[in-house]
Amino acid sequence: MRPSQRRPDELRQVRITRNFTCHAEGSVLVEFGATRVLCTASIEDSVPPFLRGKGQGWLTAEYGMLPRSTHTRSAREAAKGKQSGRTQEIQRLIGRSLRAVVDLSALGERQIIIDCDVLQADGGTRTAAITGACVAVHDAIATLVAKGKLAASPLRDFVAAVSVGMYQGKPVLDLDYAEDSDCDTDMNVVMTGAGGFVEVQGTAEGTPFSRDELNALLALAEAGIRQLIDAQKAAIAEQ
Amino acid sequence: MRPSQRRPDELRQVRITRNFTCHAEGSVLVEFGATRVLCTASIEDSVPPFLRGKGQGWLTAEYGMLPRSTHTRSAREAAKGKQSGRTQEIQRLIGRSLRAVVDLSALGERQIIIDCDVLQADGGTRTAAITGACVAVHDAIATLVAKGKLAASPLRDFVAAVSVGMYQGKPVLDLDYAEDSDCDTDMNVVMTGAGGFVEVQGTAEGTPFSRDELNALLALAEAGIRQLIDAQKAAIAEQ
Amino acid sequence: MRPSQRRPDELRQVRITRNFTCHAEGSVLVEFGATRVLCTASIEDSVPPFLRGKGQGWLTAEYGMLPRSTHTRSAREAAKGKQSGRTQEIQRLIGRSLRAVVDLSALGERQIIIDCDVLQADGGTRTAAITGACVAVHDAIATLVAKGKLAASPLRDFVAAVSVGMYQGKPVLDLDYAEDSDCDTDMNVVMTGAGGFVEVQGTAEGTPFSRDELNALLALAEAGIRQLIDAQKAAIAEQ
Amino acid sequence: MRPSQRRPDELRQVRITRNFTCHAEGSVLVEFGATRVLCTASIEDSVPPFLRGKGQGWLTAEYGMLPRSTHTRSAREAAKGKQSGRTQEIQRLIGRSLRAVVDLSALGERQIIIDCDVLQADGGTRTAAITGACVAVHDAIATLVAKGKLAASPLRDFVAAVSVGMYQGKPVLDLDYAEDSDCDTDMNVVMTGAGGFVEVQGTAEGTPFSRDELNALLALAEAGIRQLIDAQKAAIAEQ
Amino acid sequence: MRPSQRRPDELRQVRITRNFTCHAEGSVLVEFGATRVLCTASIEDSVPPFLRGKGQGWLTAEYGMLPRSTHTRSAREAAKGKQSGRTQEIQRLIGRSLRAVVDLSALGERQIIIDCDVLQADGGTRTAAITGACVAVHDAIATLVAKGKLAASPLRDFVAAVSVGMYQGKPVLDLDYAEDSDCDTDMNVVMTGAGGFVEVQGTAEGTPFSRDELNALLALAEAGIRQLIDAQKAAIAEQ
Amino acid sequence: MRPSQRRPDELRQVRITRNFTCHAEGSVLVEFGATRVLCTASIEDSVPPFLRGKGQGWLTAEYGMLPRSTHTRSAREAAKGKQSGRTQEIQRLIGRSLRAVVDLSALGERQIIIDCDVLQADGGTRTAAITGACVAVHDAIATLVAKGKLAASPLRDFVAAVSVGMYQGKPVLDLDYAEDSDCDTDMNVVMTGAGGFVEVQGTAEGTPFSRDELNALLALAEAGIRQLIDAQKAAIAEQ
Repeated sequence: MRPSQRRPDELRQVRITRNFTCHAEGSVLVEFGATRVLCTASIEDSVPPFLRGKGQGWLTAEYGMLPRSTHTRSAREAAKGKQSGRTQEIQRLIGRSLRAVVDLSALGERQIIIDCDVLQADGGTRTAAITGACVAVHDAIATLVAKGKLAASPLRDFVAAVSVGMYQGKPVLDLDYAEDSDCDTDMNVVMTGAGGFVEVQGTAEGTPFSRDELNALLALAEAGIRQLIDAQKAAIAEQ
Repeated sequence: MRPSQRRPDELRQVRITRNFTCHAEGSVLVEFGATRVLCTASIEDSVPPFLRGKGQGWLTAEYGMLPRSTHTRSAREAAKGKQSGRTQEIQRLIGRSLRAVVDLSALGERQIIIDCDVLQADGGTRTAAITGACVAVHDAIATLVAKGKLAASPLRDFVAAVSVGMYQGKPVLDLDYAEDSDCDTDMNVVMTGAGGFVEVQGTAEGTPFSRDELNALLALAEAGIRQLIDAQKAAIAEQ
Repeated sequence: MRPSQRRPDELRQVRITRNFTCHAEGSVLVEFGATRVLCTASIEDSVPPFLRGKGQGWLTAEYGMLPRSTHTRSAREAAKGKQSGRTQEIQRLIGRSLRAVVDLSALGERQIIIDCDVLQADGGTRTAAITGACVAVHDAIATLVAKGKLAASPLRDFVAAVSVGMYQGKPVLDLDYAEDSDCDTDMNVVMTGAGGFVEVQGTAEGTPFSRDELNALLALAEAGIRQLIDAQKAAIAEQ
Repeated sequence: MRPSQRRPDELRQVRITRNFTCHAEGSVLVEFGATRVLCTASIEDSVPPFLRGKGQGWLTAEYGMLPRSTHTRSAREAAKGKQSGRTQEIQRLIGRSLRAVVDLSALGERQIIIDCDVLQADGGTRTAAITGACVAVHDAIATLVAKGKLAASPLRDFVAAVSVGMYQGKPVLDLDYAEDSDCDTDMNVVMTGAGGFVEVQGTAEGTPFSRDELNALLALAEAGIRQLIDAQKAAIAEQ
Repeated sequence: MRPSQRRPDELRQVRITRNFTCHAEGSVLVEFGATRVLCTASIEDSVPPFLRGKGQGWLTAEYGMLPRSTHTRSAREAAKGKQSGRTQEIQRLIGRSLRAVVDLSALGERQIIIDCDVLQADGGTRTAAITGACVAVHDAIATLVAKGKLAASPLRDFVAAVSVGMYQGKPVLDLDYAEDSDCDTDMNVVMTGAGGFVEVQGTAEGTPFSRDELNALLALAEAGIRQLIDAQKAAIAEQ
Repeated sequence: MRPSQRRPDELRQVRITRNFTCHAEGSVLVEFGATRVLCTASIEDSVPPFLRGKGQGWLTAEYGMLPRSTHTRSAREAAKGKQSGRTQEIQRLIGRSLRAVVDLSALGERQIIIDCDVLQADGGTRTAAITGACVAVHDAIATLVAKGKLAASPLRDFVAAVSVGMYQGKPVLDLDYAEDSDCDTDMNVVMTGAGGFVEVQGTAEGTPFSRDELNALLALAEAGIRQLIDAQKAAIAEQ
């Protein structure tokens, strides 16, 4: 029934490759099936002007798609001279999601900058980005602890994200591009390892959705995110 | 307990003034307490390039805050030369919300452009904007029907929006600025007159929220939106 | 003879509503007939870099039209990413006009920022803006005096503005849109309460104008501005 | 009394050099004393979109200052990515002034683009630009007549401009930089050969000006512009 | 002597991975040691406006660095709103280099757009980009031939590039970052498989270089490019 | 054989006019035949942020073409809001070329800003700009020495540039527009008075060039630059 033959509650294959590039303090290639996003976390020893001298840190995120990560080529935002509204929405979401699990006071006057760049897109790039960024932030913070700059990690919990949606009248987990471009309701859910919601963003593209449908989608998302957090833990344990 | 002395499930006073300005096909001043947003709906006899020749219409929205609609002056976006990520997020949300209740095929090759400009801000500007824009779109479409350009209105239902949030550990309806800047979870809900959800956007600013809290917030929002749609109906009936 | 049936030397009905919005130190809705402009004056406790440490203040102005303040919708300048030449000309004119009556040395190292936003346009938006802004600046400065931050008001005089023009061969006062779009010569005049000229900007749209016509127009403007300054005084006296 | 030792009613030395560069249809270097502006007029065989198919022509102008045309270097507008409000004001003024003497209907569907670039600035660049541009437009139109594309010249009259101002309490003609930066009132006047006013733009930088002062300034300007138009005629006669 | 222990005439290890991503018609990851660039070639069925209707094709290139491809994070050009001069220089160079080996007349009215995005930078990103882009263009054109849209490939020859430079007084081949940031002369050379020069760009960062040094550098580059073209041929043969 | 009847190794007539404008510390009009470029050198008593407090100076360059310096009018970059890739390439080249002969440590914490503005273009504007800028920098530095701000000039050598190219199969020196737009290979060469190469930039527009052709072009350039440096010396000696 699903174009990919997956069960309604089945995630795509998830792969988390750490140290994908060599310069960033944290560098993770995350794959949700054919969706591939390079997530780096960079540590800078300064904070934005509005936080200077307040003794706390900051975390922010930027997002981009390589022009030919998509089925047909998209214009390069650097060449157009501006980031689209969609790009800005996504990078704000990634930043909020990660800030929810980092104790910024404990970070000191430092900034973590996350860059999520989509190498190949097949739906769910923002949820893959959040899921991968969490591991990149973990690794970047670990370098601070290893160098003795921080006594303990300010990362309080895991955070991961998945999309769910009503596809051909049924709730399904982790939409790929074929499903995403043909579904009625699309919802992105961000949760912590402890099971709290950080973001719930549901949009009816066609028919409005009912309370029952919302409940079914949330249940799918909760189960999916538990698996994603297991994958994050496994990736971190590997080293 | 609430700074405004309202009960947890109490909306601010809602006022909807039609024909607030004279040039737009639809022009509504919507007030949610001290929040005041001017919503105009303009009809243009052409559609964006991606829809030309397809025989269907389009609806889009733009949003702005007057520089001194806020407690302290905000920089004018026209002078800065770009719209903020927040502005873009909000205007995309307004556009999606209204498209959910307009039959674009029945509109013909025309475009409705909604402009929501905040004259005075006290929290909830985006939900007030959606609620007011619905009435402005109704009035703009009515001019097309009155002139015989459309046989029937393509407006299929009402749509309205409200914010809810966890304030000092309790779910409350229709947050004002004092609550909004001090709450843990903030959720914007957009629903139709038929009771379907168009958008649910919940964000944990501090502590993540639980499934029970989400349910309580949605119940508050549903009841609030029913009252807002009653106010829309009363405003339209008046003339 | 005039589309509005006014006599050649007759102003449109002038209304000045103070405290139109609640956050700005000065907030005035000024109406010249159907032209409605919201003028706010904001006090900031800093000055632009070129004045820092010089012990004097500054006053500047910004101007904008809501997209549907006009007969047909104009593109939003924030969305286009730049202010038009016309907008910049007008906001520079408003700033110069108000600086002519404020003793910047006596203001201290503070900045007054005027925002003039056109809610509804029917000709003469820049002259209405100057006239309304003067009252808004008065009110903003009054808050400084009331709080004891200034011993006396640095506002030295009133300032108001009106347009005059050659319409169908006759000099007329306070052009509305119908006249403005069909006149040969358009002149904007800014004067103080003491009767001095601050700005005279006359433009021949069609036939050049003679010295006699210029004299007739200036006489009309002087009489009109006296009435506008009376209206400013009455508005201030009301409170 | 004047820094340059000129009499109050004395112009600086005016030089008009035609064919200063070789590619433009009209190319004039105009000098008002040490102020030097290169004015070119280019003919294009198309009109802006808003005039297409209407059978009439258009004339527009652009203005710029070379970065080191001024006493201290000014930032290059192309590098800053935007033209200042002052630049836009001036180029709009030049365009309006020249359109006042060109019969656009008789021009056919062609556009004349004037470029005024300041090589060396010593006050009065906009008035020099208008004065030089008139000759450049004359020469550009002459190429159309010479090629038989137009039967007669659509240039109906000469147009020239000069500044006047109150300097140390006295009205003076053609302000140079030393006077301009230290005067109370500055007025730019644009007139035709027939003696009609095209633009009068007077600004009180300090003390407002009286009606008598305005009259004295206009008289100076009228006499100055008559001499400038004589200089234009002499330059054209020379070839 | 070289930080990498390489001989003066030794290239870094070159790896060319085809089909690195799935959507582009040609997609190549090229590695020169630790420098990794993703090169995609996209086919579009239209040409830029200046070529429409002329029956020939076009090829253009864009270049970007991921923000954390570098030792310390570089600002994202899409967020800054403009591409740097360096970026523009490089993408113009890549475009010219590839156009030198594609018969644009034989391509038909199609455009090939090359995107070179640096995943990891260690010197020589532009030369790696040209070398990888050639293989990506080969693969993209092969899809046109395979689909019968072109009878024969318009790719006339191979093209590859390498940097050479004077490092500590000695000519060396294929500079890495450590050498590049500390060399006197840096030259980028682009050559075809037939041994013709397409570009020679030599710059003295410190001491000017002599004719003899230039000759030595060109000899190194010629030998290096022969090896790179062998690597291109081997990669293409593999499939 | 050459459109200008010049011998293959013949420069166009070179004219170097010092003190062309009066405000800049160095101001030179350089002419290579019909190509005319105004080069100014401005001294500023501060350095860019990345050099503050390091006790050394900086030199940078900007380049522009007046809109009608070209055969048909080019759009004004200030109006378009961005500098083209070509402009950026050229101004970076001019800056690098001049930095090669200025001892920045000996300059002190000062900046020299070169502005090269093309008044009339006929090919070779960048090489004329470098050649003229060298004299402007000489003159600007001389003002520092004359005022006693520097004990000795930090200008270590002369620098000049010329273009060479393969035109109709033959190597020729100093291409004009007619040759430049119709040649196979175009090379710009920058050399010092001591005969060292600062930049060599050769590009095959059509057929790639051979090593022999490269050698022939370099020989022509060397001889041409010797003559240009003689012209620089003669110009400086004149005053």
